[in-house]
Amino acid sequence: MADKSFQSLPGFRDFTPRDCAVRNYLFSVWRSVAHRYGFTEYEAPIVESTDLYLKKSGGELTTQLFRFEDQGGRDITLRPELTASLARIVGANQRNFPKPLKWFEIGPCFRYEKPQKGRGREFIQFNADIIGEASASADAELIALAIDTMLSLGFQEGDFVIRASDRESWLSFCSDHNISDPAAFLPLIDRLEKLKPEALDEQLAAFGVSRAQVDAFINNPENASPAFCAIQDNLDARGLGRFLELDLTIVRGLAYYTGAVFEIFDMKKSMRAVAGGGRYDGLLSTLSNGAADLPATGFAMGDMVIRNFIEETPNAQMEMEAWMARNPACDTYVVIADEAQRNNALGVISLLRNAGIHTDFPMTQLNVGKQFKKAEQSGARFALVIGAEFPEMQLKILSSRTEEKIHPNTPVVEAIQKHLDSPDGPLIA
Amino acid sequence: MADKSFQSLPGFRDFTPRDCAVRNYLFSVWRSVAHRYGFTEYEAPIVESTDLYLKKSGGELTTQLFRFEDQGGRDITLRPELTASLARIVGANQRNFPKPLKWFEIGPCFRYEKPQKGRGREFIQFNADIIGEASASADAELIALAIDTMLSLGFQEGDFVIRASDRESWLSFCSDHNISDPAAFLPLIDRLEKLKPEALDEQLAAFGVSRAQVDAFINNPENASPAFCAIQDNLDARGLGRFLELDLTIVRGLAYYTGAVFEIFDMKKSMRAVAGGGRYDGLLSTLSNGAADLPATGFAMGDMVIRNFIEETPNAQMEMEAWMARNPACDTYVVIADEAQRNNALGVISLLRNAGIHTDFPMTQLNVGKQFKKAEQSGARFALVIGAEFPEMQLKILSSRTEEKIHPNTPVVEAIQKHLDSPDGPLIA
Repeated sequence: MADKSFQSLPGFRDFTPRDCAVRNYLFSVWRSVAHRYGFTEYEAPIVESTDLYLKKSGGELTTQLFRFEDQGGRDITLRPELTASLARIVGANQRNFPKPLKWFEIGPCFRYEKPQKGRGREFIQFNADIIGEASASADAELIALAIDTMLSLGFQEGDFVIRASDRESWLSFCSDHNISDPAAFLPLIDRLEKLKPEALDEQLAAFGVSRAQVDAFINNPENASPAFCAIQDNLDARGLGRFLELDLTIVRGLAYYTGAVFEIFDMKKSMRAVAGGGRYDGLLSTLSNGAADLPATGFAMGDMVIRNFIEETPNAQMEMEAWMARNPACDTYVVIADEAQRNNALGVISLLRNAGIHTDFPMTQLNVGKQFKKAEQSGARFALVIGAEFPEMQLKILSSRTEEKIHPNTPVVEAIQKHLDSPDGPLIA
Repeated sequence: MADKSFQSLPGFRDFTPRDCAVRNYLFSVWRSVAHRYGFTEYEAPIVESTDLYLKKSGGELTTQLFRFEDQGGRDITLRPELTASLARIVGANQRNFPKPLKWFEIGPCFRYEKPQKGRGREFIQFNADIIGEASASADAELIALAIDTMLSLGFQEGDFVIRASDRESWLSFCSDHNISDPAAFLPLIDRLEKLKPEALDEQLAAFGVSRAQVDAFINNPENASPAFCAIQDNLDARGLGRFLELDLTIVRGLAYYTGAVFEIFDMKKSMRAVAGGGRYDGLLSTLSNGAADLPATGFAMGDMVIRNFIEETPNAQMEMEAWMARNPACDTYVVIADEAQRNNALGVISLLRNAGIHTDFPMTQLNVGKQFKKAEQSGARFALVIGAEFPEMQLKILSSRTEEKIHPNTPVVEAIQKHLDSPDGPLIA
């Protein structure tokens, strides 16, 4: 529509019914996998005190904040991510829950950046975190959850890979090469592919190492950390080991990661990152001024890149369409063939709805042909025709154009449910 | 916790697992009733251009906005309600969807007001609207949805009532009493109970009417509008008529309502309003500068008052607890009685999770007693004990403290599902 007054703000999305169904499909898969893994859902406020984000070892995020002053003069921010809120909530409730916590969250986040494919100013994240468990078995549990999320979305071996590393490997490298400030050195590894070769050589030289030394380190699988090896063994025992790959170039941009780090990559589309996470053992302590000193590991997946990935991957696309077909807006459309029967039709409609059948009908008088057109538009599988012969009714199965008479003494709900329960019938939510 | 740094902003809520489960229960009931009624879900951005709210016949809301300037200099606002966004989205897409639209939405809204019981600065609304249908049958469909929402939450006759009226009734009154500016008069009716009697008398006198005339009008059921009577007949045909009451004092505060208006009241707690709505036929045209001139009717229910109402109403509370018991975080806790069997246990855990069973386990070595304690804390119904005799396992049913041996050749998933599928077993999401 050309009229600007109908547009949402740049980088913000309207979810009309199809887009909302795609979103709900993601929510459904994310929740169902998290539940299978015994994770419990939480939610944080969408607005937090800006302090919370400034405290958290800053970096790129703090320049992208939707930050403002509220009517009470508070400096507040639309959350750019969930980890800071999670740390705050765990700090406030740490005595109330036995550790380790396995918590997940699904909700919107906000970053002021240039809108582009796969990146918006409001996007939805799936966050899963394990708090209070320092061993690599927590990282493995989390990576297994990430892999099973991809498999549940219909992705298969060859579609994606988890590339993982461990910052500990690089701390060994730094110590072996007398690099005294690993925090300054690690961002260089994160940018190996992004920097021009000359610039990279120069910056590495400042730390007294060469590109050849770095490459040799990266290409030697012996440099996998003990945690990485434990994660690999753990995933192997689950039958998921084939999805994991050692990649020592993965260090993740944010400063707060302390151990194992990983990213999920789309193997077909030039290795686009679909999700990422890692261990952040010091962050809860920093954010809580030492009150909640708990080890933690977590990951996040956004809704925009994964949706694009699904729509480019036939298996995943089919899986999504099958879910939508099982969850139609309407199962049964009631056709009122005789307006004098409207009140009787309303009674039948109530019966169907009380039984959980998604039911729609024309709210005002309409000729029968138009009602059948509405029935087809609605996605309904059945049209229940109520006319002068009521309480006798006709049930039409729209796909096969077959019909059956519902006799006055037949319970109408059961007549429809018999078809709904057939193997190819839609689910009733 | 005394430490202020752990607190959310005033009026903003943390949803720890129990609160999040309550929220998810509301979401589940709202979605399920809306689906039964053939409503389709949409979502709007959380942030909109402030213009959108200023255009919408202002009033109280515009003083309560979370309004600010973004990094690009735009005047933007956290949405205080959904109707303005809905009108914008329908305006942008009006040719793409056959009318009438039956759309619903569930999501957060923001108002800067004094936090108190049942009122926060961030709250969640369930919105349902019918757009493109001018007849009272649309209002009836919407009120039926509101009633069935309450019934699905476990409320019963006597717990709540829908009080409805029609602004048309008051327009007749104004015309009969030569009141030339009904828009100035209606707010007085909205404040009948709030104004002091003397102040009220004085303000009514300015319009040339007395309190006695107003009371006589209100107390005469003959003043029900044709639309109200049509709604009553329609609800009677659905078996829901007993929940509706004519109450001519209901006019709703917002200026944009044009026809039938209603509120759901809690009958036990001094008639607290739980939800409200009405017809707003001119609003889409106003907001779209005439481009989308569609009749509309809608209602909204917030999460905070309804939660309080549920928790004060035993039937509704029981319904909610039953839902939670059917949706435990964990169905089966795997006890690793012999640490040497951990890898085998991981394989079994993957099998259970792939079958949709919510499964948890100790991520590191723990003595068996502590593992059983964790199993009980997790809410699991079963403990699956894996020890030195693997592949033989023990399945303990925690509630009855009975156990059965799972022989090496018995499929473990089916052994557990047999119990889960029993009538009192938990649902698998």
